[in-house]
Amino acid sequence: MAEKGVTPRSEDYSRWYTDVVQKAELADYSPVKGCMVIRPYGYTLWENIQAALDRRFKETGHVNAYFPLFIPLSFLQKEAEHVEGFAPQLAVVTHGGGEKLEEPLVVRPTSETIIGHMYSQWIRSYRDLPVLINQWANVVRWEMRTRLFLRTTEFLWQEGHTAHATQAEAEEETLRMVGVYADFAINEAAIPVIQGKKSDREKFAGAVYSTTIEAMMGNGWALQSGTSHFLGQNFARAFDIKFLNQNNEMEYAWTTSWGLSTRMVGAIIMTHGDDQGLVLPPRLAPIQVVIVPIWRKDTEKMPVLALAHQVTAALKAAGIRVKLDDRDEVSAGYKFNDWEMRGVPLRIEIGPRDVEQNAVVFARRDMPGKEGKTFGVPVEGVARAANDMLVTLQAALLQRATAFRDANTRAVRNYDEFKQVLDGPGGFIRVHWAGSDEDEDRIKDETKATIRCYPFDAPEGEGICFYTGKRTDRVAIFARAY
Amino acid sequence: MAEKGVTPRSEDYSRWYTDVVQKAELADYSPVKGCMVIRPYGYTLWENIQAALDRRFKETGHVNAYFPLFIPLSFLQKEAEHVEGFAPQLAVVTHGGGEKLEEPLVVRPTSETIIGHMYSQWIRSYRDLPVLINQWANVVRWEMRTRLFLRTTEFLWQEGHTAHATQAEAEEETLRMVGVYADFAINEAAIPVIQGKKSDREKFAGAVYSTTIEAMMGNGWALQSGTSHFLGQNFARAFDIKFLNQNNEMEYAWTTSWGLSTRMVGAIIMTHGDDQGLVLPPRLAPIQVVIVPIWRKDTEKMPVLALAHQVTAALKAAGIRVKLDDRDEVSAGYKFNDWEMRGVPLRIEIGPRDVEQNAVVFARRDMPGKEGKTFGVPVEGVARAANDMLVTLQAALLQRATAFRDANTRAVRNYDEFKQVLDGPGGFIRVHWAGSDEDEDRIKDETKATIRCYPFDAPEGEGICFYTGKRTDRVAIFARAY
Repeated sequence: MAEKGVTPRSEDYSRWYTDVVQKAELADYSPVKGCMVIRPYGYTLWENIQAALDRRFKETGHVNAYFPLFIPLSFLQKEAEHVEGFAPQLAVVTHGGGEKLEEPLVVRPTSETIIGHMYSQWIRSYRDLPVLINQWANVVRWEMRTRLFLRTTEFLWQEGHTAHATQAEAEEETLRMVGVYADFAINEAAIPVIQGKKSDREKFAGAVYSTTIEAMMGNGWALQSGTSHFLGQNFARAFDIKFLNQNNEMEYAWTTSWGLSTRMVGAIIMTHGDDQGLVLPPRLAPIQVVIVPIWRKDTEKMPVLALAHQVTAALKAAGIRVKLDDRDEVSAGYKFNDWEMRGVPLRIEIGPRDVEQNAVVFARRDMPGKEGKTFGVPVEGVARAANDMLVTLQAALLQRATAFRDANTRAVRNYDEFKQVLDGPGGFIRVHWAGSDEDEDRIKDETKATIRCYPFDAPEGEGICFYTGKRTDRVAIFARAY
Repeated sequence: MAEKGVTPRSEDYSRWYTDVVQKAELADYSPVKGCMVIRPYGYTLWENIQAALDRRFKETGHVNAYFPLFIPLSFLQKEAEHVEGFAPQLAVVTHGGGEKLEEPLVVRPTSETIIGHMYSQWIRSYRDLPVLINQWANVVRWEMRTRLFLRTTEFLWQEGHTAHATQAEAEEETLRMVGVYADFAINEAAIPVIQGKKSDREKFAGAVYSTTIEAMMGNGWALQSGTSHFLGQNFARAFDIKFLNQNNEMEYAWTTSWGLSTRMVGAIIMTHGDDQGLVLPPRLAPIQVVIVPIWRKDTEKMPVLALAHQVTAALKAAGIRVKLDDRDEVSAGYKFNDWEMRGVPLRIEIGPRDVEQNAVVFARRDMPGKEGKTFGVPVEGVARAANDMLVTLQAALLQRATAFRDANTRAVRNYDEFKQVLDGPGGFIRVHWAGSDEDEDRIKDETKATIRCYPFDAPEGEGICFYTGKRTDRVAIFARAY
């Protein structure tokens, strides 16, 4: 029992996180520095994330394709800001097939350059536009300090790359896709993210501007959970993506890119998890319902298992992802802990008394103890009841996370209060902001807090910048971040 | 028109292949030597292949996971045959994050080693077995001569890696998975593959033995289209994958691996394609039905388009992947050629006369001209009729490919006849075989033909080896191969 537990969050949040990732068997360290192994339970979660996103991408007119893992080093150098941003993080292949390569190849840290090159071959006329392509792929960014899912040398993601005939269309696409990410995060992952624009200091290397979804973790830190970039004509110029417009003039295309990665798994863990382990939103959970049969005497075993199988079949037929835990070698209590650790949203307990009453017990993962239990749920209609409970649970997780975020979002009047909040309760600091890039740097140096975004939704209107004292209508959210 | 055509197969089969891949927009060359870009149409085909396989993997109890792209060079060296086989093909990362690495990392050519290492951490007892994991990933094998989809430096695939408590279970798994590949190839891709065992010369580097599905391409050459390997305890010994068995003794696990790659796209092209371009099996086709509205006068346009939209909606509602080609700027003839090139199985033509009769015309991709047309298909029930036609088409493709394979499979009595067949009609040569490894090498040197497999299904019984004259019950299929 003690062995299976995780470090309490209040004791060491960072260790709690690592404990949960490993004990829930989401991922493991690999012998390759900075690279992780995504274990089946974690990968199934990622598959569910992929499916929910991919559906949204296709509904908004995108198609998938695949571009090479390797990129000639010279390609990265074509866009000045881009190479400056990514150069320190590159993995470089110098030898292939036993020989030294004439030009080193980098393992893609992101694919704007190689995709830009291909687009320059494919796009000739306005009739070829827009190009709306997404890629599911692995990417590599050399990291000194890594953390499972949150920051790893290799990670999995999707990267959308689109080209448009006009600036307006490209900007619309940029916003559409950050909106898709927000819709996914809120309605599938039950994470109440805030959409906004990145500050110039925090934007993607090579973008005109970047937009983001920012989530609040259980310790009040921010996690950038998906970004969508308006690239203007920067990459079109660097890679010569030109087209003949309707007036028969050659013009550079307008491009965007947007990405969301396995980091989202970290966001889910740290938004919903508790001291018993993982808590998964039902819409993404690999196992939505676990059924635990309970018996003492051998005579009880048969009827209990029979009912357990019946309920399992009913749930499966209703399209619920259900697991019957009929292991003989471990106790019911052990099973409870085991599935709580893995964050299964709903547990159904079936004992001899339940068999007599032709009913079962529901136990919600998000509410420990009696409070989260429903006794005497009739077997007739159990699938519907389970489904309703999963819907309730999904909404409850979002509501709880939203309440937590709002309770931990504070305004401050001046820099002293700003520092007090950061050193005290932490969380998001939502303020008017008229500072310069250098002011932003200084705040980061002094407090480790950064501008997470300028939220799109800023009903505050005009006000006074907490740092410069200037009047402004710009609102910023500051926080310490992963 | 001429521009859109492909080189006839009879003129230059190899150019025909490359023409089809590029003109159907399945893939394109990339600026990185040996690496291809899989374009959206080709990638959608791959997604359909993935879905059909992944469903089968899950039905047979497998789960997906993800292991690192990079493997320490020393790992490959732990299994002697394995490193010997793969060393010449490795891409090597020597620098990361601006510094020279202490130990070079290879980009995975296959993942037995890194997965073996992880299994040694995870597997402790017979209760942890079997481990049934699959991974969808990119791999890199440095190639001197590449060909789109068939042989590229980077390719996409799935690799299954399983560990078992007994030899019998592992061998059963090996056979189960080559059977899954055959089931997929025959029933989804309409490719009548032959299942069999590889000769020792052709087996996977590090396997005890390999099994394969072999397909016959339109020029009579063989294409190895998927392999499943029994690894014995070779990798378990190299990576120390040990478990406590039921008798409380430590024992090495028995492992298997199996893979199928984007090469399957090449198999589909070369099994079904013709001089008009691609021909896709309906079950995997990105677009199953294309609807081409035809009108001359403006007054005809509205009613024709209205019916086209109605039929499109009906097919979509029935779950058919349908595309309405309502382009204004190109002629109906141009559209016919365009979709024929892309291999769409069924075309529905709708003209003014069809509107009058409330009917449509079906045109099968696999039968050119009037022969493949059905006139007057009533709009009422059109989705069902289209669906029936797709089922018919799928069966017809398999039947045609099977007839072609059988017509091009020959027996020979001696080595002279063997060489005559290879220099004449080509195809598969199915013979009794009692030769040695050296005999096999000699035949390869002299004729470029190799043993593709010892087919599992060999009703021939005993006979005389064409090469050695010895009696044997072993049957081999020889062919030139990609």
